[in-house]
Amino acid sequence: MTFPAWPKDEPVTDPPVAVFDSGLGGLSVVGELRRLLPHETIVYFGDTARVPYGTKSPETVARFAREILAFLMRWEPKCVVAACNTVSAVALPGIVSAQAIPVIGMVRPSAEAAIEALDQLGGKMVAVIATTATVASNAYQQALGRLDRQVIAVQKACPLLVPLVEEGRDADDPLVALAVAQYLEPLIRWQPDVLLMACTHYPLIRPAIARCLGPKVTLVDSAAATARKVASVLTERNALSTAGTNGKLLCYVSDNPQRFQSLGTRFLGEPIPSVVRVRPNEFESIPYENAPKRMAAG
Amino acid sequence: MTFPAWPKDEPVTDPPVAVFDSGLGGLSVVGELRRLLPHETIVYFGDTARVPYGTKSPETVARFAREILAFLMRWEPKCVVAACNTVSAVALPGIVSAQAIPVIGMVRPSAEAAIEALDQLGGKMVAVIATTATVASNAYQQALGRLDRQVIAVQKACPLLVPLVEEGRDADDPLVALAVAQYLEPLIRWQPDVLLMACTHYPLIRPAIARCLGPKVTLVDSAAATARKVASVLTERNALSTAGTNGKLLCYVSDNPQRFQSLGTRFLGEPIPSVVRVRPNEFESIPYENAPKRMAAG
Repeated sequence: MTFPAWPKDEPVTDPPVAVFDSGLGGLSVVGELRRLLPHETIVYFGDTARVPYGTKSPETVARFAREILAFLMRWEPKCVVAACNTVSAVALPGIVSAQAIPVIGMVRPSAEAAIEALDQLGGKMVAVIATTATVASNAYQQALGRLDRQVIAVQKACPLLVPLVEEGRDADDPLVALAVAQYLEPLIRWQPDVLLMACTHYPLIRPAIARCLGPKVTLVDSAAATARKVASVLTERNALSTAGTNGKLLCYVSDNPQRFQSLGTRFLGEPIPSVVRVRPNEFESIPYENAPKRMAAG
Repeated sequence: MTFPAWPKDEPVTDPPVAVFDSGLGGLSVVGELRRLLPHETIVYFGDTARVPYGTKSPETVARFAREILAFLMRWEPKCVVAACNTVSAVALPGIVSAQAIPVIGMVRPSAEAAIEALDQLGGKMVAVIATTATVASNAYQQALGRLDRQVIAVQKACPLLVPLVEEGRDADDPLVALAVAQYLEPLIRWQPDVLLMACTHYPLIRPAIARCLGPKVTLVDSAAATARKVASVLTERNALSTAGTNGKLLCYVSDNPQRFQSLGTRFLGEPIPSVVRVRPNEFESIPYENAPKRMAAG
């Protein structure tokens, strides 16, 4: 098997944090993680052959997520982060129960951050923007309601914002401004106290969203909230890296490593060191037992 | 095996025309085919679990196309139509050579239609709009150059137009008008005689494209050109249906049949009768020999 195993010349003492997403977006969570926990080594998988997930059915998204998780378990990670709001919203419960290590999604940490922001403001009205699949799942409305029954949550699918960001457009692009205005207009009527950006792509056009909402609405970023949750889970478990040097970032994708590397820098906030393309027969339907194991320290 | 074989209560005398696409877009070719050849029965496959193809690598697009083709061969079609410009541009040569029946792509028929329009106008300048993958392949520039070495072709990738159309937006939407204006602006400077819409989604926003270009530019629709090619190939081979009644349309998708049915009507130009979801193990890596065969007439 030609599977790209952990580099042989670089034995590691710490198990890594595994992060996955349908494509590039999860790199915004990785960027936050590397600022919070610079010593952690991170293994990332982006399913660029089948991206996007946001318009697909829960059943299909769950199947894709299970295949990726089996791939990532080869590195014996200390936790897995589903750095994709769509996966977190539609597929996480089934995944979490099957794993012995913590699997951290984006919905619960983001909902907690939104409630915290509401409490500080003394408000009760939160607006959620997300993909079509995330909105259809009602996962955010349920999570917010479980945390605070008094909270009123309104939500809106914004399917064009992901392709707009992936085309390299930023907050100053007139097309971005017009799309944001069209999507947010029905939410603004509800006079929300907080707007939760429940998709990893949205922070990249945050200024356009902030301009449209005005200064009275507090923005909550699901990527930052999720990274803080990972830090707190690892701290509670006494599982933080004890390495004295900065951790590595290993990226694997199912298609187009060049596109991932060139577009991904914007999401990560730093250059992406190297990206390895994984062939379909290397991550689809391979049982964990047959996969190469992470090397122990030398 | 629970594979949805040809309906048992409806034996057919004629082999069908098989049509496939990454998703919905190929239905615009089917719509044209049903107007031109109403007696033909059509089997359609839309790969909605892995859509879109336009941002993916040639290798991945070719693998997806081969899997779909193996699925469609179970119906013993008299021809296969790759009703996806991206597949036609990046993967068709490898597919065509492996098949005994005609496999008709969109590039050659569309390029022929563009040259024909140029000849009528006495012009030499054609602008091509398409997906990122189609533009990167240079397939249209090569096909146009082979047909007429005097032709000058300029091309432009318009990645947002597909998600704009799939969100249900039409030519009157301000976001569509602004996106079209941004994409076409650098092409207009070349003063093209003909604009070739080399993606199945673009005819749905044709009025916005026409308004932006003005009356001096002739629009060529790749879906209509491809359907005319299918009609001429079947006529040449004396393979047109002799049925006295209208042919059926059977649609198979890899995900989200409800979304396909609701959005697809706009592409087809008529309601979609029924859509069957195909499970991954029913179309990925199943050899043709093991697949159920089309029933003979009763």
